[in-house]
Amino acid sequence: MNLITIEDVHAAAERIRGAAVRTPLLPCDWADVDRPLWLKPENLQPVGAFKIRGAANAMARIPASARANGVVAYSSGNHAQAVAYMAKRLGLPAVIVVPENTPATKIEASRRHGAEVVVVPITDRELVAARLVAERGATLVPPFDHADVIAGQGTIGLEIAADLPEVEVVLVPVSGGGLAAGVATAIRACCPAAVVIGVEPELAGDVAASFAAGHRVLWSAQDRARTIADGLRATPSELTFAHLTQRVDAMVTVSEDEIRAAVATLATCANLVAEPSGAVTTAAYLHRAADLPTGRTVAVVSGGNVDRWLLAELLG
Amino acid sequence: MNLITIEDVHAAAERIRGAAVRTPLLPCDWADVDRPLWLKPENLQPVGAFKIRGAANAMARIPASARANGVVAYSSGNHAQAVAYMAKRLGLPAVIVVPENTPATKIEASRRHGAEVVVVPITDRELVAARLVAERGATLVPPFDHADVIAGQGTIGLEIAADLPEVEVVLVPVSGGGLAAGVATAIRACCPAAVVIGVEPELAGDVAASFAAGHRVLWSAQDRARTIADGLRATPSELTFAHLTQRVDAMVTVSEDEIRAAVATLATCANLVAEPSGAVTTAAYLHRAADLPTGRTVAVVSGGNVDRWLLAELLG
Repeated sequence: MNLITIEDVHAAAERIRGAAVRTPLLPCDWADVDRPLWLKPENLQPVGAFKIRGAANAMARIPASARANGVVAYSSGNHAQAVAYMAKRLGLPAVIVVPENTPATKIEASRRHGAEVVVVPITDRELVAARLVAERGATLVPPFDHADVIAGQGTIGLEIAADLPEVEVVLVPVSGGGLAAGVATAIRACCPAAVVIGVEPELAGDVAASFAAGHRVLWSAQDRARTIADGLRATPSELTFAHLTQRVDAMVTVSEDEIRAAVATLATCANLVAEPSGAVTTAAYLHRAADLPTGRTVAVVSGGNVDRWLLAELLG
Repeated sequence: MNLITIEDVHAAAERIRGAAVRTPLLPCDWADVDRPLWLKPENLQPVGAFKIRGAANAMARIPASARANGVVAYSSGNHAQAVAYMAKRLGLPAVIVVPENTPATKIEASRRHGAEVVVVPITDRELVAARLVAERGATLVPPFDHADVIAGQGTIGLEIAADLPEVEVVLVPVSGGGLAAGVATAIRACCPAAVVIGVEPELAGDVAASFAAGHRVLWSAQDRARTIADGLRATPSELTFAHLTQRVDAMVTVSEDEIRAAVATLATCANLVAEPSGAVTTAAYLHRAADLPTGRTVAVVSGGNVDRWLLAELLG
């Protein structure tokens, strides 16, 4: 299987310039002395998540002849918003296929960006998306199972390497694996002495279980859906899993309580609103010190789209 | 009276590099079409506020012969944390003089940075600080009434000009006036077509009242203390007021309810935790459109040190 290269990530960085925010590294004065911590706040991106990077890279590569036919995404989460946002920015039509249990606020968010939203039974999502692609000549922008999407997410690793070349530990959330695959590709190439550690919720710890078993372990969607971290309920594709096994050094998992507490810590100590999925790396830093190497650490805060009532509850 | 120059701000930018975070401009996809909005998130600085910039610049200029005698600051708020943080970073002793009504958490924050904290009756603050300066040969770092502090805060304006040269409106909070004085100096020099608008709470609107009257109007500390925006209860010095009258184009005020709502908007729409003082510019953008020019707008989010219970209340 062909993995993406560091050149793919560099090319993505050129393509997404201006669409994605060049996020800074934020030093944390509350970190342990032997493990100084910086946060990479991808929750500050347009649409509130790193997903803008992969979507922008993949959509920049659509041939001129196919652009007018638009794009299709099936997702109810941050990826859908990223595709809708980028389509508006690029002047392309977009269709977002969402399952019928999607909260109205999320549908509204996609519509606000001008996207057409098609609501279908959850089991029909990929089928309907494929039909739209076939009927309209549109381009599918998958959430993670695509080399261009992985390369786009990898630009986060390039920026970490540029801002903190002496980084020693990079903590990155793992769900479908596109983010971790891309970041690990960039860090391996630019900071070969650093280790990249993937973080999952215990309740959606299929990749950690796979690493522990030494072979791919599959968990049901129902099992993975138990975590509060709703952005981390996916499972890698063959493509992203191959990147993870070859380029991510280790996996750790965190509990639901630790994730909840980390959301509050990020709000109170770093002035960042993180969604539970975006807080798992901070949870690992705070509660899995024994499983992590010491040294200069970067935690990727992947997104911030948390319901305001939940945020208030976690703070109260 | 000598005002600072753009050269002072450029020199400050060199001095504070590495101490202050180079914050990005964050585009807001929820902004009005004719008034695109970017946030300048100074709440992401170490110590959670822009104050690090002025403190870093002023402290970098302390002569080698005086460094071992340390620094003194009288403040219970973000400026004290900034001085304590920078002193630790530079290896200087620091004394923070705080009034006896200061919350224990704020005293603890200064001590965590290694500062000595002296608790005094509120009316004795400046006297005790002056005595410490005289006795120890220490250097006083004032919160705003100092050219180096103003120049340090002005680096925010330089960064706005670099990232968005075509900016048309800059919204900046006004309290003691150091931030607005510095930002206005930089914007006037780098983006002469842009207007700089100061924002105050109505309940601490002494500078707005002064602008309206055409001469300096003084409000009592008791009056100014009514606002929830506890970082905006100070009043300009002669030095900062001279900068404001000559370089800030207009003042607007916002209500307490508007400030509270803006804290929630920044958390839910921009994933930023802002303190009430840091949210006044967003409040002005949202609720004072009639008083503001249209065009590309930047709102400075000056700080994020809000009590977690208050934040939870404003979100709930």
